[in-house]
Amino acid sequence: MRIGIVGGGAIGLLVAAYLGKEYEVTVYTRRALQAKRLMDEGLLLEKKGETTCISLRAMPFAQAAIHDDIVFVTVKQYDMEAVLDSKDRFQHVRNVVFLQNGMGHVEKLASFAEKNVIVGVVEHGAIKRDDRTVEHTGIGKIVLASLYGTLQDVVPLAATCIPDFSFEIADDWEQMLVKKLIVNAVINPLTALLRVPNGKLLQVAPYYEMMKLLFSELQQVLPIKDREAAWKHIVSICQKTAKNYSSMLMDIAQQRKTEVDAILGYVLKKGDELGLSLPLVRFLFYAVKGMEEGGEKNG
Amino acid sequence: MRIGIVGGGAIGLLVAAYLGKEYEVTVYTRRALQAKRLMDEGLLLEKKGETTCISLRAMPFAQAAIHDDIVFVTVKQYDMEAVLDSKDRFQHVRNVVFLQNGMGHVEKLASFAEKNVIVGVVEHGAIKRDDRTVEHTGIGKIVLASLYGTLQDVVPLAATCIPDFSFEIADDWEQMLVKKLIVNAVINPLTALLRVPNGKLLQVAPYYEMMKLLFSELQQVLPIKDREAAWKHIVSICQKTAKNYSSMLMDIAQQRKTEVDAILGYVLKKGDELGLSLPLVRFLFYAVKGMEEGGEKNG
Repeated sequence: MRIGIVGGGAIGLLVAAYLGKEYEVTVYTRRALQAKRLMDEGLLLEKKGETTCISLRAMPFAQAAIHDDIVFVTVKQYDMEAVLDSKDRFQHVRNVVFLQNGMGHVEKLASFAEKNVIVGVVEHGAIKRDDRTVEHTGIGKIVLASLYGTLQDVVPLAATCIPDFSFEIADDWEQMLVKKLIVNAVINPLTALLRVPNGKLLQVAPYYEMMKLLFSELQQVLPIKDREAAWKHIVSICQKTAKNYSSMLMDIAQQRKTEVDAILGYVLKKGDELGLSLPLVRFLFYAVKGMEEGGEKNG
Repeated sequence: MRIGIVGGGAIGLLVAAYLGKEYEVTVYTRRALQAKRLMDEGLLLEKKGETTCISLRAMPFAQAAIHDDIVFVTVKQYDMEAVLDSKDRFQHVRNVVFLQNGMGHVEKLASFAEKNVIVGVVEHGAIKRDDRTVEHTGIGKIVLASLYGTLQDVVPLAATCIPDFSFEIADDWEQMLVKKLIVNAVINPLTALLRVPNGKLLQVAPYYEMMKLLFSELQQVLPIKDREAAWKHIVSICQKTAKNYSSMLMDIAQQRKTEVDAILGYVLKKGDELGLSLPLVRFLFYAVKGMEEGGEKNG
C-alpha cells in the first residue's frame, strides 16, 4: 500500500515515520529544500532518547501528481486553502484523510465528496526539531471517522498493529471533532494566556474556575451530546499532559502563528450564526491575537 | 497644622514627604521597626534622580492616640478593616481623608460619619524602595471630595501650592471614585494578565478590543454618568503612563497581594446585587487570583 503525506510539519513527519516502517511513504512538502533533505538523508524519529532513521520518498507538493492509495493531509488549518485549491493533484487518489484541528475545514471538504473523505484527530504529542527530525513526545492515538464515502481502505491501516502508533475508528465525525475542539478551545488559550503547563489549570483553584466559565460558554454554541463526558475529557487531558506546554503556548513563546482562528475563530463564527455574543471566547480570541502580534515583546 | 498619616506604604510615604516639608507630620506605621527608622533616620524622597531627606515623627499605629488636625488613611483596601476596627484611635480627630482604591470601604465609613470624612483618589505614581525611601515616579495630583461633613479644614491644604503635589476638590465623591475604579478595573487586570506596559493596550489592536469588551461590561454595573468621558479618561491614562507597568502587574511580578478584591471583587459584588453575571470581570478576577497563588511560578 502506498501512503502519501501532505505537509512536513510535526504531525506530517510523525505519521511518515511510523507508516514509513510498514508502507511505501511519500511526503509532499511546501519547500523543495525539505523534500530534498528527507530524500537524501532520511527522516529521523526521536523517542525516549532513541533515534531511528527511516528512508522514504519526498517531493514538493506543488510538483506532485499524487498516485497513493491513501493520502494524509496534515497541514495546519491556516494552510488548508492552498491544499484545497490544488484539488487536481488529488485526482488519482481515492482516500484522503484530513488531520486538522478545529472544524473550519469540514464544510470546504464537500468539494472532495466524490472520494472517500476521512477526518481524524491526533492525540499524539510531537515536536519538529528540524526539517528531517521529529520527536514523539506523547504517545496517544489517531482517531478516524468517515465524512464522505467508505472507510474500507483505511480499516487495514487501523488493523495493523504499529507499536506506539495505533488508529481507532469512530462512528460520529462531528462528535469526534467537537470533543477535540473543546479540549483545544479550553486548554490552549488559557495556558497560552496564563503561561502555565496544562496541569496548572487543575492545580490552581481559580484557574479551574476559569476553565468552567469558558466551558459553559462553549456549551452554548457547540453540539456536545454528553456535557459531563466532555468536561471529564478536558480534565483527563490536563491530567495526562500535566507537565506539557500546550501547542498554542509554545507557538506564542516561539513567535509562530497559532491555530486560534481554527479554534476560537471557528467558535465565534458559530456563535454569530446563532446570535450568541460569547464574551469570554471573544476576549480570549483577541488576547491570543494580541500575543501573536507580539504585544508583550516590544514593551 | 498637624497632619497624621496612617500607613507607611508608597502612598503614605509620598504624602508624608511632601506635606512634611510644610506641616508637622506624624506617620503611623504597622511595624514598630519602620517607625523607629523613620524617626531616627528621616524619610528619603527620590525624584528625577535627586534625593531629599525629610525629618518627621513616626510611631506604631497600634500605640497611637492621634491628635492631628487632618489624618490621611493610606493603607490598602485589604488592610482597612484593622484601621476601622481601631476607631477609638481617631476619637480626637475631626478630619479624616481616605485614599483607598476601589469603593468597598465607602459604606464602612458610615461609622466615622460624626467626623468630616473625605475620600480621595491618588493620581501619582510612587514606589516604596525601602522602609524609609519612596520614589515619586509619576507626578499627578490628589483629588478630594466630601463624603460626610465639611471640607473646610482641608481647603487650606488644597490652596497651598506644593510643587509637584497639588490637591484638587471634586463635588461628587461617587463619580470621582467610579472614574478611578474604572481605570483600575480595566488597566490593572489586563496589563497584569498580558504582562505588558500600559501603553500596549492602545498600541496592540486586539488588546484595545479587549479593553472595549471589558469596559462595556463595567458600564452595566457601575454608575457612570458620562460614558464617553469615562472611556476617554481610560485612554488618556494609558497614554500618559504608556511605559509604566501597572501596580497590579508589579504586585504579581513581585509576588505581593494585589488589590483585585477592592477592584474587580467590588464590581462582582455590585453585579451580584443587580443580578448581572459579568463573565469577563469574573474571568479576570479568577485570573488575577490564580496568578497571586503563584500558579505560574511553580510549574
